[in-house]
Amino acid sequence: MAGNTFGKAFKITTWGESHGKGIGVVVDGCPPRVPLNEAAIQEMLDRRRPGRSSISTKRKEPDRAKILSGIFEGKTTGMPISIMVENKDTDPSAYVPYAKLFRPGHGDFTYQAKYGIRDWRGGGRASARETVARVAGGAVAKALLESKNVRVTAYTVELGKIQATERELQEICRNPFCCPDRHAAQKMQQYVDAVRAKGDSIGGIVEIVACGVPCGLGEPVFDKLDADLAKALMSIGAVKGIEIGAGFSAARMLGSENNDPIVPDGFATNHAGGILAGISNGQDIVIRVAVKPIPSIRIEQKTIDLKGAPTTISIKGRHDISAIPRINVVCEAMVNLVLADHLLRQRTIQ
Amino acid sequence: MAGNTFGKAFKITTWGESHGKGIGVVVDGCPPRVPLNEAAIQEMLDRRRPGRSSISTKRKEPDRAKILSGIFEGKTTGMPISIMVENKDTDPSAYVPYAKLFRPGHGDFTYQAKYGIRDWRGGGRASARETVARVAGGAVAKALLESKNVRVTAYTVELGKIQATERELQEICRNPFCCPDRHAAQKMQQYVDAVRAKGDSIGGIVEIVACGVPCGLGEPVFDKLDADLAKALMSIGAVKGIEIGAGFSAARMLGSENNDPIVPDGFATNHAGGILAGISNGQDIVIRVAVKPIPSIRIEQKTIDLKGAPTTISIKGRHDISAIPRINVVCEAMVNLVLADHLLRQRTIQ
Amino acid sequence: MAGNTFGKAFKITTWGESHGKGIGVVVDGCPPRVPLNEAAIQEMLDRRRPGRSSISTKRKEPDRAKILSGIFEGKTTGMPISIMVENKDTDPSAYVPYAKLFRPGHGDFTYQAKYGIRDWRGGGRASARETVARVAGGAVAKALLESKNVRVTAYTVELGKIQATERELQEICRNPFCCPDRHAAQKMQQYVDAVRAKGDSIGGIVEIVACGVPCGLGEPVFDKLDADLAKALMSIGAVKGIEIGAGFSAARMLGSENNDPIVPDGFATNHAGGILAGISNGQDIVIRVAVKPIPSIRIEQKTIDLKGAPTTISIKGRHDISAIPRINVVCEAMVNLVLADHLLRQRTIQ
Amino acid sequence: MAGNTFGKAFKITTWGESHGKGIGVVVDGCPPRVPLNEAAIQEMLDRRRPGRSSISTKRKEPDRAKILSGIFEGKTTGMPISIMVENKDTDPSAYVPYAKLFRPGHGDFTYQAKYGIRDWRGGGRASARETVARVAGGAVAKALLESKNVRVTAYTVELGKIQATERELQEICRNPFCCPDRHAAQKMQQYVDAVRAKGDSIGGIVEIVACGVPCGLGEPVFDKLDADLAKALMSIGAVKGIEIGAGFSAARMLGSENNDPIVPDGFATNHAGGILAGISNGQDIVIRVAVKPIPSIRIEQKTIDLKGAPTTISIKGRHDISAIPRINVVCEAMVNLVLADHLLRQRTIQ
Repeated sequence: MAGNTFGKAFKITTWGESHGKGIGVVVDGCPPRVPLNEAAIQEMLDRRRPGRSSISTKRKEPDRAKILSGIFEGKTTGMPISIMVENKDTDPSAYVPYAKLFRPGHGDFTYQAKYGIRDWRGGGRASARETVARVAGGAVAKALLESKNVRVTAYTVELGKIQATERELQEICRNPFCCPDRHAAQKMQQYVDAVRAKGDSIGGIVEIVACGVPCGLGEPVFDKLDADLAKALMSIGAVKGIEIGAGFSAARMLGSENNDPIVPDGFATNHAGGILAGISNGQDIVIRVAVKPIPSIRIEQKTIDLKGAPTTISIKGRHDISAIPRINVVCEAMVNLVLADHLLRQRTIQ
Repeated sequence: MAGNTFGKAFKITTWGESHGKGIGVVVDGCPPRVPLNEAAIQEMLDRRRPGRSSISTKRKEPDRAKILSGIFEGKTTGMPISIMVENKDTDPSAYVPYAKLFRPGHGDFTYQAKYGIRDWRGGGRASARETVARVAGGAVAKALLESKNVRVTAYTVELGKIQATERELQEICRNPFCCPDRHAAQKMQQYVDAVRAKGDSIGGIVEIVACGVPCGLGEPVFDKLDADLAKALMSIGAVKGIEIGAGFSAARMLGSENNDPIVPDGFATNHAGGILAGISNGQDIVIRVAVKPIPSIRIEQKTIDLKGAPTTISIKGRHDISAIPRINVVCEAMVNLVLADHLLRQRTIQ
Repeated sequence: MAGNTFGKAFKITTWGESHGKGIGVVVDGCPPRVPLNEAAIQEMLDRRRPGRSSISTKRKEPDRAKILSGIFEGKTTGMPISIMVENKDTDPSAYVPYAKLFRPGHGDFTYQAKYGIRDWRGGGRASARETVARVAGGAVAKALLESKNVRVTAYTVELGKIQATERELQEICRNPFCCPDRHAAQKMQQYVDAVRAKGDSIGGIVEIVACGVPCGLGEPVFDKLDADLAKALMSIGAVKGIEIGAGFSAARMLGSENNDPIVPDGFATNHAGGILAGISNGQDIVIRVAVKPIPSIRIEQKTIDLKGAPTTISIKGRHDISAIPRINVVCEAMVNLVLADHLLRQRTIQ
Repeated sequence: MAGNTFGKAFKITTWGESHGKGIGVVVDGCPPRVPLNEAAIQEMLDRRRPGRSSISTKRKEPDRAKILSGIFEGKTTGMPISIMVENKDTDPSAYVPYAKLFRPGHGDFTYQAKYGIRDWRGGGRASARETVARVAGGAVAKALLESKNVRVTAYTVELGKIQATERELQEICRNPFCCPDRHAAQKMQQYVDAVRAKGDSIGGIVEIVACGVPCGLGEPVFDKLDADLAKALMSIGAVKGIEIGAGFSAARMLGSENNDPIVPDGFATNHAGGILAGISNGQDIVIRVAVKPIPSIRIEQKTIDLKGAPTTISIKGRHDISAIPRINVVCEAMVNLVLADHLLRQRTIQ
């Protein structure tokens, strides 16, 4: 019982390895007559593409989305939408030195243990390149949600140890870190430069806000909206923590502080992060995810080889220093997928 | 498309409201020939039961588990296992004053908006009493996992603003807060007493450790073990945040700090929290969840009534001051359910 | 991965054995605000109850349906609806002689092989008594469909070798075989009497018609309406064949005969049985199922015991001579469940 | 909630329209280390390909299978296996005359009603060309099953009104109708020639036998092996009826005739068709499906246009006269998919 399908009413099934023939997604359940074209998908893929800033890998991936089915005369037909991105700049030779080693922090060890076979070329399916399919599928969800005025935005609120204190969303597209605080963004640049010089890597925190979500989405008691969002985001390789609204800080608040007073036009505060008892309450949905540092670093690390013998490894390939900000659009995609799924699920009881 | 079923191979479907006839669970997919009796389920339910300490409600719920199917001569038969707990001490009259008000921090508002009808007696299905079914179902998962030497333990590492700094697991059953640090437990008692006097409530952080989990559990790329754990735990009403291993602090570490060096007998550290690329790596699985303060407080709060008119509310019923420690066994149950599910799923590829 | 859940949007999960504590169903996904009470369920259960005619077992099962959750003030709430029927007249002693034998035509052999353990009391979960839960769940589906003017009716068109040639539906409730042809019903009575005298059993064919089904239900390409109906009906223990519309006789028709001409107000004929390309076309849905003879017969048969040694068996318990007509309401229930499921699924794309 | 995914443990998701860019399948859940290459898939596709006999369309479809993921060094890796077949000989112009008409017996009418939009080129996804994906996915299932010595064979037992009375399986590949009775095959040829001359079409009956299926596959009570087989086969466009073992003739047998006596090495007869109580019993599984005549005929038929006005239609494209024998390999594929799924599901309880 593999796990390459996500969603129940709006579903994606993804496939593909880092250095295979391509990466793809089949979207099933998208309603008919939604306007959709390749440009809408390409726009999202371009935001994920590497090589746009000093923080990311130099690997060149044009990543052209091709829609193979499910569209007729510019609209969805209700049939499965198959989207494929061919792998172009695949150089498995760079991975030959690591074919018989387990890279720390990577899935090499666990994939080998689980499957007894492993496509070691670029990490195979455990590569972050897998997220191309999530972004493509998420772009279809986004097209559906836009017609309902739902918008999802992800931005960087922490990189390494540098925290954003402002939330000036217009700044997001003005600095390479997608940070809504331009002073913080400047410090991030210095920090990134210092880390790169040492051959190390960093993590950070991404905040995602969904605006315009109608009240009533989410399915108690297990498929609560926050539960599905937590799964969606935790399924992204680098994510190690998730919080909704006040999140971990709610654990330190009194009930009288944390409860959001209810007023005639909604809620006076939003510690709940837009979700009450697993159902959207009409407020903005606010989520933060903790992103671990990229495990591929030049600094020498202890490891073992396929036979279990101890050795060391230093990884020299083309790697990002941080999954942020390329991961941001992946986070948006996963949130869009969850919201589209629950939008359709809610219709079954109306 | 409601969401009252959890799991794919080892599945539970739960039902029941706080003040209805009872709470129940149907476990489907448990392998045959696992020894199981009502006492094993009762033991877990007793740990969830209120009235055991000054922190919890005075509601008396004997909560006797009855197994209605799926067991023959003391063993599971492979058939669905139906377990029911009757509701005994149900006094809906206490809720009459709130029938036409939305309690802040509760699901009243969102259930009404979603369904257009609401069983207001004790919160209906949005009540924490719903977790009785999770604990009963989790007890079946536990019985299965014990035969594989997997053990899951939850304990309190933060209550209100008091943090445990020790992890002396033998202390857990020696104080009313299930805290592995007896000095912290003493401070928690003082803090709880002060909060109760004010009619307020508190949250905290629960840590869950799973030992003995074999390497190889978890299904890339969406049903990763950490993704399913995140969903499982976030689906518990009071949980607002989840982190695996180093979690949010990983976001502030360098790659060279966060990566766990691989050594011949495993890993030198466990920042990953036992999961790499969504697959268990043989280390302890370590999770922390943020629990929000109980929303039902005596302190007066702003709210609106069913017609949208502003008013205030002060909740006087029998309520816990904190979901901790009663929630701890619920967290264990959810983790047991995820592990049992993935244990069975892994068999399909072996 | 057990299989005790049916449906995707309107779902039932059933549990219970013939001689255990009871039989039950949890309905998940029923929209809120549908009027429902125990009487509506009881009415369907009463049609399934034995002891109403000379054809069926003398076992007395009052079979009182109790709704345990999901209803508030006479309406569904959107929460899971748990329904239980207690087993009353359970006399396992009658099955002791067969505890170590495999009854031909029964699941004894395959359950033992599959699970390595078997509740032999009354056939355990392989008993036709399991269908109590289907009927109860189907009654909830029926309540939902009735508000949309969809009506499902099953009747007997063949019993033993006696065929009905008329379709006078008002006759169905006027003879013990639920046959729409009163002349045929008389011959059926004679045939049944002769078979009973010999200690043998018979099968037959049930026809099910669904009227008022809106155009557009069914999900290509795998969850076609006819595919889900086929699964639903074939999952009933005694069913060995299914055909839609012209069915097997379509295999002998020319295209020019079988195609239903399309006319401004629908179709000129209905060889398709109301389903085209897996989607309802607005015509009546017409299905026939082949029901095998009851395997429990007094006549001596060859079998083996648990150790594999050859022996003979003659079954003396309280058994029906034919699954018909008690199975008819079970067929209706399964069709109602499929239609309710697809009604809700269709909403997700509207 | 669309329905383009089939299976629970061994799953396929298919996509593609008749005259779009291609047809594809993603297989998820295939265990790792199963030997697989494109030739194994091509072999099955070649059996489905048109143009091999006088009975089938002249459309040229080289139908080259390309494996895009999930294979490494000649073996499955446990990752999703994406297979694509490009559409080559697509000439939508032939369909322009029918773009605004509903072809009788086709999905045109119901697709338009359900989705409000329709890819009319070649029938879009309602085309029998969709089955390319089933055959490709089934070939992966076949590769898995072959390692367990399970073999599935489909053959023609009736075409038009001509019935095979022999079951000489070596004859199947010696006549263009895949008929195991060479005398019947000769008559079929004459019949087909006569029908073609009239511009009409025919149906028939396909029998499928699965040998070597281990005892114990199938999941009571809803996912019984026969229930899933019925769904799998009924989901093929042209199929209108299904029977297992004695099937409809069981309805006319006495219990003493129909019950298969149990003997020390299995069963003395096989009226059950290899399945008892929904679980395989170790005997051959025997299924028959009724295939309706191809709806596209040259003979003029009544229909309506998109606006509902009555008109006539005569279909001149490149069409088969019968879905048989090209459908046979599709039937095999669906049975292989069900058996592979249940083989893996059974492992979860072992």
